[in-house]
Formats: sequence, structure tokens, C-alpha cells
Amino acid sequence: MIEKKRPLILVTNDDGFRARGIRTLTAYLKDVADIVVFAPESPQSGMSSAITHISPLRYFLYKDEENVKTYICNGTPVDCVKLALNVLDIKPDMVFAGINHGSNAAVSVIYSGTMGAAIEGCIFGLPSVGMSLCDFSNDADFSESGVIATKIALKIWEEGLPKGVCLNVNVPKGEVKGIQIASQTKGKWSNEYYKAKDGAQRDVFWLRGYFDNWEEDNSETDEWALSNGYAAIVPVKINMTDYDLMKNLKHWEHELVKD
Amino acid sequence: MIEKKRPLILVTNDDGFRARGIRTLTAYLKDVADIVVFAPESPQSGMSSAITHISPLRYFLYKDEENVKTYICNGTPVDCVKLALNVLDIKPDMVFAGINHGSNAAVSVIYSGTMGAAIEGCIFGLPSVGMSLCDFSNDADFSESGVIATKIALKIWEEGLPKGVCLNVNVPKGEVKGIQIASQTKGKWSNEYYKAKDGAQRDVFWLRGYFDNWEEDNSETDEWALSNGYAAIVPVKINMTDYDLMKNLKHWEHELVKD
Repeated sequence: MIEKKRPLILVTNDDGFRARGIRTLTAYLKDVADIVVFAPESPQSGMSSAITHISPLRYFLYKDEENVKTYICNGTPVDCVKLALNVLDIKPDMVFAGINHGSNAAVSVIYSGTMGAAIEGCIFGLPSVGMSLCDFSNDADFSESGVIATKIALKIWEEGLPKGVCLNVNVPKGEVKGIQIASQTKGKWSNEYYKAKDGAQRDVFWLRGYFDNWEEDNSETDEWALSNGYAAIVPVKINMTDYDLMKNLKHWEHELVKD
Repeated sequence: MIEKKRPLILVTNDDGFRARGIRTLTAYLKDVADIVVFAPESPQSGMSSAITHISPLRYFLYKDEENVKTYICNGTPVDCVKLALNVLDIKPDMVFAGINHGSNAAVSVIYSGTMGAAIEGCIFGLPSVGMSLCDFSNDADFSESGVIATKIALKIWEEGLPKGVCLNVNVPKGEVKGIQIASQTKGKWSNEYYKAKDGAQRDVFWLRGYFDNWEEDNSETDEWALSNGYAAIVPVKINMTDYDLMKNLKHWEHELVKD
């Protein structure tokens, strides 16, 4: 068996194929890997692991460049991963999603389309990584995130990643002091709606809010890492079972059936 | 302090407010609780934890009946939970989502809008339950699921539920032999697209597939419970961190920054 010299990486995102984040990610990864981009044609931020089943999906080859083939799809980030792995004749060695414009740390892992795509790659048994930069500005500098993504890709190519776990990587704005392996910070978004009026003066509600950190002093968390200048890597399990609570709820098996 | 005799339950779903599943759930739960329904105006199946931020949300009070107030919203299941808990002047004691038309067992917990809503209730610190019936047919019998939901609501009202964990409850079609506390079955959907033609004879892809069970012999799993006639209750953690892998990846902190 001839060992492949370079991995094949499936790249997608939730900001759409035109976003600077995915173009930067591809520009960096193509130095060490062959790339198939399969990305949404329009922004799909906050789409989590949503799948499209009521309407049909379409995709087409948009660009065929050296080491980088780019496909565009009318679906969600998860649709992109599913479609690429079901209908293209490719066997990627890993999946990268991003670089997202904005943080996906803490509980945002649950709402993130970027992480939806990484989780889907993981469901397919592939080492998968979601990359996000904590900077929403138009002129955000994605280069440091591109360097980190490349290092992670090479590390995974060398060591692999256990099945059932993907990585949620968030990179702070500005200078990056180092890397921290971190946990998902406990907390939630608060004060989540801005009430406004539409053209007919009817009430409408726009999502917004701030993150309420419930463990500000825990230096193990991704939010702590980011606010101290470190890129945070959270290993994310796709099996959400709470095995401890399974034991504690065992008595329900009898008590729920008796009347 | 006067103890409340009946809990207040926030009810939502992903099939939309008209679905028989949510109407049955409400009909059962209102015997033991006061109910606020805050549900999507249109089907939102497969929406996972998607949130709406690019367009505005609207809601209105649709019906005000004894013990049951019903609001309708133009958003996703998670939008419904967020909006109800942010803008209505209510303090529910728990959140129920469903009864979903179709299974949300195994990896479907990740794609499910029903479970998206339950996970959101859990993020808010409320005991939360997603209910699903493994029957897609129009004349599906939701009554047994309604009975089980009521028993679970009373059990939670009595015992509570730990923070950070919600319940994914799936009820088999036909006679229910009992209840099993179960784990999320490992596996994935396979053969996921049906290729068809649109009116102009262009290729389109429709989501479908079958569930490929990777642990058919594991009697601890939700798929095993369901195929043996038991309702399955999986405790689902909203903290997805793999703490074991955190330790094993610690060496990356040094190795990813060198050179």
C-alpha cells in the first residue's frame, strides 16, 4: 500500500463560500493538503446541525483549481458535509469548517453552523475541526487562525483523533500567546432580544445579547483561555449521554410504570 | 412561601402548533399543570438548535383557554423557547417539546428541532424533556406518549432534574412494555440522498436514508429499547466537552506552538 503524502481535506463553513474566513482557511491548508471545498452558497450562521428534507438540494462545481476544487450548495453546513460525503467520489482524511467570523466558544458550540459541520464530519468517523476567530469586523485578520488550522491538520495527520470527538477551536483577536486545551464554559446568553418596529409599526424582535459566564474563575475553560490571549481547543463529544445520570434515574423504570 | 400546587409548563415542538403531537401533549399535561404553548407557526423539523438572527421574529397570542395559553411564532423551536423565556412574563417550572412525529433516538438527537428546544430549556436551567413517537403515519396514536409525558412531568415536579441535563424520550409504535433508561445508540444515517430531477430535468437531491446501528447487541441503548417495545429515556448533557481527551491532548499545548 502506497502511503499518501498529503491528506485530502473537506472544507466547509457557515458564512458561505464567499466569506474571507473560508478563503483564508483554504489558502493555508492547500500548502499541506489537497482540498475539496463544499460550502453553502449563502450565509448559514446559527444553523446548528439543521438538515434540509422538505426542499431539494442542488450543488455545482464552481471552481477547479490546482489542489482545490470548490463546490457550492443551496443547503446548510450539515447538508454540505452530508452531500459531499454521499455523492462525491471522494474519501477525505479530515473535515475542517470555518474560519468562522465570530466566536463559537462556550454554549455557542450548540448553535453554531460551523460546529454543526464539524460534528457531522465526526458522525462520519472523520477527524473534524471547527475553526472560529473571535472578531466580527470586516477587516479581521484571519492569518493566525490559518496558521493554527494548518498545525492542527498536520498534527491530526500524524496522530489521528479518536472516533466520536471533534475539535472546537476558537482563536482570540489580536496576538495569540499560545494554545490551551479547554472545556466548554458553563453559562448562557442573556437579554437576548432587541424589540423594534417594522415599517407598519408592528413589534419585531431581533436576536442579540451578551454571554453570561457562570465560571469566570475557571482557568480550564475556553472563555478563560480566550480572554487571556490563548487559542482554545475544546474536544467535543457527539455522544451526549449522561452515563452518571443514567444510573441515578434507574428507579424511574419501575416507578413510572406503576399507576 | 406558598407552595405551588401545579407546575407551569412551557410547551413547544418542531412540527408546528397545528400538529397532532403538540395538541395531544397539551391535552394530557393540562390535567396536571398550567400550560403556555409557544410553538412555531410552520413545520421546523430537522432544525436542530438553529437560531434566527438575520431576520426579525414575531409572535402573537393565538388562543387563551382555561389553563392553556397558546402563542405562535415565526421562528425555530429554539427561537420559541428563547423568546418565551425572554419576553413573556412567565417563570415556567419545566419545558416539554413534542410530541414529535417520528423517532429522535440515537444520533437524531443532534438534528432534532424537538431536542433543540429541550436543550434550550436546559440551557435556561429548567428541567426539560423532548418527547417523540416512532410513528410517522397520519393516524399515529399519541395517547400512550401523552400518558408517559404526564408521568415524567409529575416525577420531575417531585424529584427535580439535575442542571445541565435534559431528557430525550422516544416511545415505540404500538404497545409499550415499559420504560428503559438508555444511552444514545452509536451509529449514523447511511445512503442519505435520493437523486431526482426537477421540472427542467436538473439533478436535485432529497434527504432520506436508513439508520446504521453500530451497537445492535447493546441492550443499554435507546434503539435496543425501542425495538424491544420499551420507551427509551436518554439523559442528554449540554456540556459536550470530552474531559478524558482533554488530558490526552495536553501535549498539543507545547507541540503546536513550537517553530
